[in-house]
Amino acid sequence: MSNQHSEWAVQSNEAVVGIVGAGPAGLTLANLLHEAGIACTVLERGTREYIETRPRAGVLEHRAVQMLTEHGLAGRLLEEADRHGACEFRVNGEAFEVDYSALYGGQTHYVYPQQDVVRDLLGNYLARGGDIRFSVSDVELSGIDSASPVLTWLSATGERERLECAFVGGADGFHGVTRKSIPQGAVQEFTHQHGIEWLSVLAEAPPSTHKVIYALHPDGFAGHMLRNSTVSRYYLQVPIGDSPDNWPDERVWAELHKRLALRDSDWRLTEGRIIEKRVLDMRSHVVEPMRFGRLYLLGDAAHIITPVGAKGMNLALHDAEVLASALIGYLRTGDDSGLEGYSEKCLRRVWRAQEFSQWMVFMLHRSPEPFLSRLGQARLEHLIDSKSSVGYFAQNYVGP
Amino acid sequence: MSNQHSEWAVQSNEAVVGIVGAGPAGLTLANLLHEAGIACTVLERGTREYIETRPRAGVLEHRAVQMLTEHGLAGRLLEEADRHGACEFRVNGEAFEVDYSALYGGQTHYVYPQQDVVRDLLGNYLARGGDIRFSVSDVELSGIDSASPVLTWLSATGERERLECAFVGGADGFHGVTRKSIPQGAVQEFTHQHGIEWLSVLAEAPPSTHKVIYALHPDGFAGHMLRNSTVSRYYLQVPIGDSPDNWPDERVWAELHKRLALRDSDWRLTEGRIIEKRVLDMRSHVVEPMRFGRLYLLGDAAHIITPVGAKGMNLALHDAEVLASALIGYLRTGDDSGLEGYSEKCLRRVWRAQEFSQWMVFMLHRSPEPFLSRLGQARLEHLIDSKSSVGYFAQNYVGP
Repeated sequence: MSNQHSEWAVQSNEAVVGIVGAGPAGLTLANLLHEAGIACTVLERGTREYIETRPRAGVLEHRAVQMLTEHGLAGRLLEEADRHGACEFRVNGEAFEVDYSALYGGQTHYVYPQQDVVRDLLGNYLARGGDIRFSVSDVELSGIDSASPVLTWLSATGERERLECAFVGGADGFHGVTRKSIPQGAVQEFTHQHGIEWLSVLAEAPPSTHKVIYALHPDGFAGHMLRNSTVSRYYLQVPIGDSPDNWPDERVWAELHKRLALRDSDWRLTEGRIIEKRVLDMRSHVVEPMRFGRLYLLGDAAHIITPVGAKGMNLALHDAEVLASALIGYLRTGDDSGLEGYSEKCLRRVWRAQEFSQWMVFMLHRSPEPFLSRLGQARLEHLIDSKSSVGYFAQNYVGP
Repeated sequence: MSNQHSEWAVQSNEAVVGIVGAGPAGLTLANLLHEAGIACTVLERGTREYIETRPRAGVLEHRAVQMLTEHGLAGRLLEEADRHGACEFRVNGEAFEVDYSALYGGQTHYVYPQQDVVRDLLGNYLARGGDIRFSVSDVELSGIDSASPVLTWLSATGERERLECAFVGGADGFHGVTRKSIPQGAVQEFTHQHGIEWLSVLAEAPPSTHKVIYALHPDGFAGHMLRNSTVSRYYLQVPIGDSPDNWPDERVWAELHKRLALRDSDWRLTEGRIIEKRVLDMRSHVVEPMRFGRLYLLGDAAHIITPVGAKGMNLALHDAEVLASALIGYLRTGDDSGLEGYSEKCLRRVWRAQEFSQWMVFMLHRSPEPFLSRLGQARLEHLIDSKSSVGYFAQNYVGP
């Protein structure tokens, strides 16, 4: 049914849904609507090459993969993604494996780069005749509180173009234009700085582990993440306001060796050429409700979460699934209950993920306040020796 | 073996262990040592009547009651205490019962006022010929880093008295003299203000519930605790720096009615004459290690915890049990491993309790930062609908 538009769409001969942003949220929404015969147009400021190669997140939950599979969007992912069911915590020079998959019904993480998710979604959408405009600029929204919002933009060749549609999906990220088009005060915005910064390091080094490693050291958090057989990602908690300039390669490796070290063990970290160093700050942001008039926000446009817990892309895909289902329900039968409940349904999952992410952030980092640092360490020590605590972790990490 | 002193004690004809403070920690330690034939002297600044009627905490865990039972100290408690295996959370006008006993192997809380615990411990200690001095003042410690520390004090009749002993148990609370006798910098002190204050209200009103109620309302936390059939305790989160003067009785009841209200329910709060109003701030304090030389700190002298989670008296009893066992081991066989491990063993439980208490504090209160308030609410909503989350709560609330 990929190219059969609904009666409404055929009559108007225009997109019913305008989607701003071709990330995982926008492209999933586009694919699901297109599959249901609802015409849409996607606007993307980058080029195809840019969005297919831009590195971002890389972990999908069982549930998200299930959804993509149901819609025929997971073919390559299921073939290529690494499945992870365990991670490792290090504290006080000892290592503890948590087999979260065994603890939560066999569900696993799928490690698959976000740019590959985008490439697959885009390929499917274009192969089925979907409409997407790359390299657009100066996108403007008007009439979003009316029944026929209008999108205008400058095309790749510099012409002003215009689309009147029934709904707008705002999937253009935290800095995008769609959320900023909502009148001041019409939605509530919750923000939080977690008071933590990471030095994020990418190196041409084979992984020194088969599982993600989270280490709590007196000098701060260190993480060893997995990419592929030749490139690895590492994180180091650094003081607020620190700069990559303060971290020459030798210092990065010395600090990683120290914070990841195990007592009485042959384990060693393998070094490699460092190809990227960035400082990330941990912040959260939530818009409530995720809607104004005919504009529905998805993914990072509606909420930012810390990378701890790897929830960002999964929340974006969930938003897209819920919104697609709500729009299909309304456009097919006039039932607006899905649209009315969209924000609440998504935000329940968003706040739960924010709570879990903050729980993990607190557990894995040093605080400037010694009491809070010791409390975080107590949380980690408890995780290691308590069935109920590790059960909470497993459900929230790989599920729900 | 109640009155058979060890050889050491008989030879010295003096207390081997001087204990400062006749609260649950000090009196449990005194009973356990006395039972093992180790002479001790307890110094208490209050009168017997004062300590037997001073209201404080009132919840004992299964584990603490088990320990008291093993030492023949729980007779009256087992007859008179109310056993609680469930509590109730209220949020968004709905009530949710958590049967933590069923979730954690049938263990229950024993609701039994702290002054009754003290009365029972004291009665047993005196009946077995234990030595305690009431109404002492100006207690001073010297030589605590030597093998024979000395305690001096003014007796009830104003005479300066002196005790040379082998060990000192510092069980004289947060404001006591024992911790203050430790030289500056010899131990690390961790403190934290949780940024939360409660108005604590005692009223001559029958309980309006059979279970403790924890309510999260947009205006802040409200709690309904149980005392007996004619007196009840209530808590209200109030702004930092608030005074009981701002809370005339009508305002207290109006606020309790509002914050505890249920939608679509006949439930009503029964009012009564208010007999006490106090403002409590939530703070935590931990001394590490809980020892300097021959001085061992117990209970509130070593750590303060918020009342949320009702861990304070339980930690005090655990300290006393661990210290008694360590002292008995050393004095009987010269094995000092118990004494060397005392602080670490106690602090593992202390930090775990602090972590849990802070987890609950965060869940039940409004924060000045809206993001954190919503995160707390998400934690509570998650508790209500997640098996793993309620499992974590149950284990930590009634156990471990």
